[in-house]
Amino acid sequence: MDDKVSGNLLIIGGNEDKQGDCLILRKFVKMAGGRQAKIAVITTATERPREVGDEYRSIFLDLGAESVDILCVADRAAANDRHRSVEIETSTGVFFTGGDQLRITSILGGSNIDRAIRRAYQRRAVIAGTSAGASVMSDTMIINGESSDTAKKSNLSMAHGIGLLEQVVIDQHFAQRGRINRLLAAVALNPYVIGMGIDEDTAIAVSDNAVCEVVGSQTVTVIDGKNIMFTNISESQPNDPLAISNVLIHILPTGYAFDLKRRQPYLCE
Amino acid sequence: MDDKVSGNLLIIGGNEDKQGDCLILRKFVKMAGGRQAKIAVITTATERPREVGDEYRSIFLDLGAESVDILCVADRAAANDRHRSVEIETSTGVFFTGGDQLRITSILGGSNIDRAIRRAYQRRAVIAGTSAGASVMSDTMIINGESSDTAKKSNLSMAHGIGLLEQVVIDQHFAQRGRINRLLAAVALNPYVIGMGIDEDTAIAVSDNAVCEVVGSQTVTVIDGKNIMFTNISESQPNDPLAISNVLIHILPTGYAFDLKRRQPYLCE
Repeated sequence: MDDKVSGNLLIIGGNEDKQGDCLILRKFVKMAGGRQAKIAVITTATERPREVGDEYRSIFLDLGAESVDILCVADRAAANDRHRSVEIETSTGVFFTGGDQLRITSILGGSNIDRAIRRAYQRRAVIAGTSAGASVMSDTMIINGESSDTAKKSNLSMAHGIGLLEQVVIDQHFAQRGRINRLLAAVALNPYVIGMGIDEDTAIAVSDNAVCEVVGSQTVTVIDGKNIMFTNISESQPNDPLAISNVLIHILPTGYAFDLKRRQPYLCE
Repeated sequence: MDDKVSGNLLIIGGNEDKQGDCLILRKFVKMAGGRQAKIAVITTATERPREVGDEYRSIFLDLGAESVDILCVADRAAANDRHRSVEIETSTGVFFTGGDQLRITSILGGSNIDRAIRRAYQRRAVIAGTSAGASVMSDTMIINGESSDTAKKSNLSMAHGIGLLEQVVIDQHFAQRGRINRLLAAVALNPYVIGMGIDEDTAIAVSDNAVCEVVGSQTVTVIDGKNIMFTNISESQPNDPLAISNVLIHILPTGYAFDLKRRQPYLCE
């Protein structure tokens, strides 16, 4: 690889720049090896796989990647077809497009392709995802929950994600869709978990030592519930408004990072 | 007065229930003296003063108030007309309708009516306001700022409010319009100030000892910046995304209160 690798997860809040400087997608190609990058794009989340796949292929090739393969895996038979995982086995970067996160997990979960992605991650290929492809990165993911509404337990439904990033719950299109209250509810359910709300055209690059570096034009909102003093989330009814006290929030633009192990934000050097 | 007074400010996040149990408006009438309540409704904020005034008159009379006067004060000449402030001088409760907060301050600020309101507040009449009428309560108020957008300095413009409540900045229609980032920016500008984001159909009743009790069906989001470790708000350009670390957030539904002096949320007995 001709470029320094700063980590092997890139989690994007959706609607990343595809026409201008393409900072985030450029970062992905760089992390995947630059001119040696062999990229597999997984379009399972979207219902327009050809169109979306072709767009990313053309961008990644323009940004200097060596090869780009589009994996249009739309059902479990395809997900278990041994021939379909070859491009993942040889890839240096895997990219999940946006769409519906439940399509990714319900179609790929436990399949041959799922195992190939985990092996790729283990051998330090970069795994990236945008929007729905971002949500699936954590062990438990948000699949539904009203935006711009008062915090309530019923606002939220969650499911198993792919689980490459533990102890975190990701939300995307974050400021743009007013999603803070659903992410607060997710953190209140178990304050061990750190909420990461990623705005559009913004991403976190996660390094081996669990440092999340912010990239892109907007911000990442980190929600840390470690000091919560009280919450009514266990005894409240689904439509009752939530009570939660002493939640810590950090708003971080590019140039800042969050250390998941120390639960600490900081300005990068 | 036939009811215990729990304080003399009632600050409502807009869109309060007017057809059902009218919990918040009922609370206002009770605070203003119940069957002895003499209420003055100030419709300056709205451009439909007759319609809005008539609606509140009918509700407050239904809820048992002794008298309700509507003050349609739409310009500075009227605001300085000595005859127009008589109803405020004798009122036990003053109610500001919603509309545009700048209409309230630019039309009433420094006028005869403004002075009458301050005197009413001093002699312990209850001062209430909903939506725009809520925003004006603080010494500095938010007059503009994009909702559901990444936190930025440019998202925000502020002006002098009426200033009955110090050390606080109020935002209304809070969860419903996704306004957390503009309130975070307002707090980051001076973390001495506590941000109170009040949802629709929700209010805070403020007592003499600066305790804010939550009333209504949704929640109040309290933003406390006392522990902010870093922010780029002074050096950032208007459209740069903000960095802010270690902001404390509390989400409080009915039955909870926030003590402004001790900066402490708690469950009421």
